Amino acid sequence: MTDRGILYVVGIGPGAGDHTTPAALAAIRDAEVIVGYTTYIKLVRALIGGKEVIRTGMTEEIGRARAAVERARAGGKVAVVSSGDAGVYGMAGLVFEVLRDLGWRRGDSPALRLIPGITALSSCGSLVGAPLGHDFCAISLSDLLTPWPVIARRIEAAAAADFVIGLYNPASGRRTRQIVEAQATIRRHRDGTTPVALVKSAYRKLQHAVITDLDHLLDYEIGMLTTVLVGSSQSFVFEGYLVTPRGYGHKYTAAGQVKDGQRPGHSLVLGDTALPDARLVTLRGVDHFGTPGDVRCMQVVLDFLGC
Amino acid sequence: MTDRGILYVVGIGPGAGDHTTPAALAAIRDAEVIVGYTTYIKLVRALIGGKEVIRTGMTEEIGRARAAVERARAGGKVAVVSSGDAGVYGMAGLVFEVLRDLGWRRGDSPALRLIPGITALSSCGSLVGAPLGHDFCAISLSDLLTPWPVIARRIEAAAAADFVIGLYNPASGRRTRQIVEAQATIRRHRDGTTPVALVKSAYRKLQHAVITDLDHLLDYEIGMLTTVLVGSSQSFVFEGYLVTPRGYGHKYTAAGQVKDGQRPGHSLVLGDTALPDARLVTLRGVDHFGTPGDVRCMQVVLDFLGC
Repeated sequence: MTDRGILYVVGIGPGAGDHTTPAALAAIRDAEVIVGYTTYIKLVRALIGGKEVIRTGMTEEIGRARAAVERARAGGKVAVVSSGDAGVYGMAGLVFEVLRDLGWRRGDSPALRLIPGITALSSCGSLVGAPLGHDFCAISLSDLLTPWPVIARRIEAAAAADFVIGLYNPASGRRTRQIVEAQATIRRHRDGTTPVALVKSAYRKLQHAVITDLDHLLDYEIGMLTTVLVGSSQSFVFEGYLVTPRGYGHKYTAAGQVKDGQRPGHSLVLGDTALPDARLVTLRGVDHFGTPGDVRCMQVVLDFLGC
Repeated sequence: MTDRGILYVVGIGPGAGDHTTPAALAAIRDAEVIVGYTTYIKLVRALIGGKEVIRTGMTEEIGRARAAVERARAGGKVAVVSSGDAGVYGMAGLVFEVLRDLGWRRGDSPALRLIPGITALSSCGSLVGAPLGHDFCAISLSDLLTPWPVIARRIEAAAAADFVIGLYNPASGRRTRQIVEAQATIRRHRDGTTPVALVKSAYRKLQHAVITDLDHLLDYEIGMLTTVLVGSSQSFVFEGYLVTPRGYGHKYTAAGQVKDGQRPGHSLVLGDTALPDARLVTLRGVDHFGTPGDVRCMQVVLDFLGC
């Protein structure tokens, strides 16, 4: 019987040394075998002298995950390295799928150690201001493994419900249609002046960040290494920063005084305040106070039913 | 004229030393004044000996932000400290609001330094498996600053579009209704067996994590320090871990072979595969192939219009 191996699944954050946690560095130092996509391995090359390295291309994730699990199961100390957070579109989920296929159980070899990292939303956000100051979502535009209708429905829902939207994997050499469709969908629900940040290679050598808006985001180069952050109806640009406020202005004056009718520690009192993007529309002769998303949903349903 | 001050806005991650980045530690060490909520200040107390500390209670965020900005504007080196990522429901957005009110411009004092951290979604996720392996959203259930109808609409949209849902600030002593309503809304769109993780005080002394499901999440104590992670229709529990797969199983066999009709590097071919949670329903005599969310939306609209 072999000793119990250890399988670290490590997120190294954006890749610059000073944004990688001590826990992630300790895991990589402790490992005998390092497994990862070539680009990520390069980011930690200073730590891996003398270790065995298994690096394969981007479309060979299953092979990497299997190799890592097998080596650790046999008693090795193995670190699977992802950039950002390994749990966010990273290798962690695939490692669990491989373990399940192998019939692994808790207590078996290997022991699992999941080390969180700073995900691209946070690292990119910090370079352009505070875009994630209120409710947000992450959507990957890659349809290599997910049916496009599922992705399209998520874009529509997120746009209609006024989430800040972070788009991962927005485009690649072969995939260029998805970001065009995503822009059009979001535009149906939000003003063209809604602020958008495009961040490439955050905290790496070729770092590049642009603040633009929904009507102009397609004027810029968007690729595999770009993260797209689309503001909500509440987001604003201030001195070149993209900011989504938490909403203090609904209850407090700029000086911190509580506004009339509001109470600290209690639910926000709406009074005559409407929902941020609701408006009165007349649809087939019926007045309706709703959001652009509500209205579009109603139109689709009515068309479908031939009402 | 005063020297140009520096205002660091720092996310320290979950609070354990080995999950705080070197960049965050360096900012705190460099600062002369530390500003933060008492709980967060305690997490970094080893670093702040001899420094001036401005700590106030949780509902005094505006006062803290103003104090920090004023001190830095006058030439001081000030660090505003948040747990998690300061940009995610943290102090960063409020700092920008205060700067805007003061008429600050780029180049003025203070210089801004935004340091990203590991947000609660990532730290909590790493303790329970890989719940964020595919598209997800973050929703705060606090209606102290956001109208509840806005929050409710986001929950509905996220549930209908099959996002993994992370709920921040799910409840407090006074706010207990919101998590009940959120559970009911999500339950209308997802099976009661959908896996749910409840994580409290990740990587801190009183850390506690539970895996349950949508029908039973309200059986557990949920408070200010709890993060609720609700799986998507694709999430599964394996050996006590909550995993949301990326979707490799749609295109590859467990051994990594490409399935018939699929091509690596190309869009997923759907064939006869339906959307994950779509089903045939008969609504007022009309057959419709849609998701539970679609159907509910149709019912609401039909009721509204009296169709």
